[in-house]
Amino acid sequence: MFYIWDIIGTFIFCVSGALAGKQLKMDYLGLFVMALITGTGGGMLRSILLGDLPPVVFTKPDYVIAAALAVPASMMFGNAWQRHNRIVSIVGALGLGVFACLGARTGIEHGLSWWASIGLGIISATFGGVLRDIIRNEVPLIFRKEIYATAALLGAAMVLTMDAAGLPKDFSLIVASVTTAVIRLLAIRYAINASTHD
Amino acid sequence: MFYIWDIIGTFIFCVSGALAGKQLKMDYLGLFVMALITGTGGGMLRSILLGDLPPVVFTKPDYVIAAALAVPASMMFGNAWQRHNRIVSIVGALGLGVFACLGARTGIEHGLSWWASIGLGIISATFGGVLRDIIRNEVPLIFRKEIYATAALLGAAMVLTMDAAGLPKDFSLIVASVTTAVIRLLAIRYAINASTHD
Amino acid sequence: MFYIWDIIGTFIFCVSGALAGKQLKMDYLGLFVMALITGTGGGMLRSILLGDLPPVVFTKPDYVIAAALAVPASMMFGNAWQRHNRIVSIVGALGLGVFACLGARTGIEHGLSWWASIGLGIISATFGGVLRDIIRNEVPLIFRKEIYATAALLGAAMVLTMDAAGLPKDFSLIVASVTTAVIRLLAIRYAINASTHD
Repeated sequence: MFYIWDIIGTFIFCVSGALAGKQLKMDYLGLFVMALITGTGGGMLRSILLGDLPPVVFTKPDYVIAAALAVPASMMFGNAWQRHNRIVSIVGALGLGVFACLGARTGIEHGLSWWASIGLGIISATFGGVLRDIIRNEVPLIFRKEIYATAALLGAAMVLTMDAAGLPKDFSLIVASVTTAVIRLLAIRYAINASTHD
Repeated sequence: MFYIWDIIGTFIFCVSGALAGKQLKMDYLGLFVMALITGTGGGMLRSILLGDLPPVVFTKPDYVIAAALAVPASMMFGNAWQRHNRIVSIVGALGLGVFACLGARTGIEHGLSWWASIGLGIISATFGGVLRDIIRNEVPLIFRKEIYATAALLGAAMVLTMDAAGLPKDFSLIVASVTTAVIRLLAIRYAINASTHD
Repeated sequence: MFYIWDIIGTFIFCVSGALAGKQLKMDYLGLFVMALITGTGGGMLRSILLGDLPPVVFTKPDYVIAAALAVPASMMFGNAWQRHNRIVSIVGALGLGVFACLGARTGIEHGLSWWASIGLGIISATFGGVLRDIIRNEVPLIFRKEIYATAALLGAAMVLTMDAAGLPKDFSLIVASVTTAVIRLLAIRYAINASTHD
């Protein structure tokens, strides 16, 4: 089930990359590469940092397929994405939560301590977007909207706490991911971000 | 013979990096670093992704020497590069082809599937230029000119097909690289790129 | 003792990252991430290139703590940093020297040749700042001020020479780091940089 969420989360991040590429008037291959980088960059950096190589995007085709599907999706339903903005936000926030939780667990499985695993969860959830923003010459979102990375941090910490408490793995992942998504969505809804310069 | 092509390809990409640095009014060391990053960035990322470390640029001095030679070459013959634009384009396109083919073969040798190896070929051929463009704050060329990455994709696919068909390795590499170069040069000549916003 | 210098150097680079984040009006978490990336990016890339994974920042908490302390330090003493500019320059230049020397030694310990080890020293000393500058959309300092990377190069070469001559390790590291710092400080003092376009 969570493999499905992983792919759905990847797809959503891929679409966000492809939409960013569209704004830059990239061609089809450019959109595909932007989609792939945005959707898989976080997992790729995690693999590099853990020495767990080659990254899964080079061994399982699903991620490349998700990126390939994101291109027509962003082209054809570009307006629909705008109209159903709320659905995109919800699924994207769930993707953030799932990526943060899966990333944190991967850290624990590789013998990292809790704080390093939380860091790995944040990296997994945010680095794809950082690459997307660097390529399009913008200061990355993560540095402008605190609740984005903070939500990932809380989700990662929550899943590790529940794992340590011995709760069922699937249950913990669902609860922590949904909590992450709710925090993120509330932050979007009420435009919360603890800027140091308000 | 292909080692020579690898070094020539590296040198040409190094010169393109140094010329970009010149436009930014970088000093000599800056030009050298730009040359080195542009010429070896693709191979370095490939090594990182495969866990084949340290990258060859740290073990064989030829790449550093190519970058060092690219600096005076770009300084002194800056105008010549402009005048003999066609020669630079041809050698650069051949470099693109050789890098794409060598990168794809490296993937197969490391047990990757064909599609991942093609991806690795594209990364090998384009990532140095991506770094160059990120450093100088431009949207990378690969995202603006489709035929650039597409030519690399076709060359990588072609060499893998010919290898699978059991053709002589050297022959396949020459044919695929030259084909890549011809595609790329035709695209430059006729300014082909399948933009999504024409 | 040099572990202490490593942490102090990290802290100083962290503060420079946090101050850059402040100029971009980042929030607290953004400042922390900028501090962490700037302070540890060089060491992280060195670990990735050597396949020495995961990077030490994921296994020892001191680096994360240094980044966390850099945030209030940059917020509260923002003006003090300006006033005691000279102290910051001196400690920062020493950090540059220590990072360059430690990075070069790490290369030798991993069996790299002298020139590759010097390269690794330069990477260790400068890459964090390169990341900081890419994130804030500036052409990296290393490409604009030659004496920055050149000082790192000289320090790295010096410590390797002294090591090869069999001098005591601590003595060599101190002398080479201080020399690096002096070169860097003289360059700042007299605004030396061998621009190609003066």
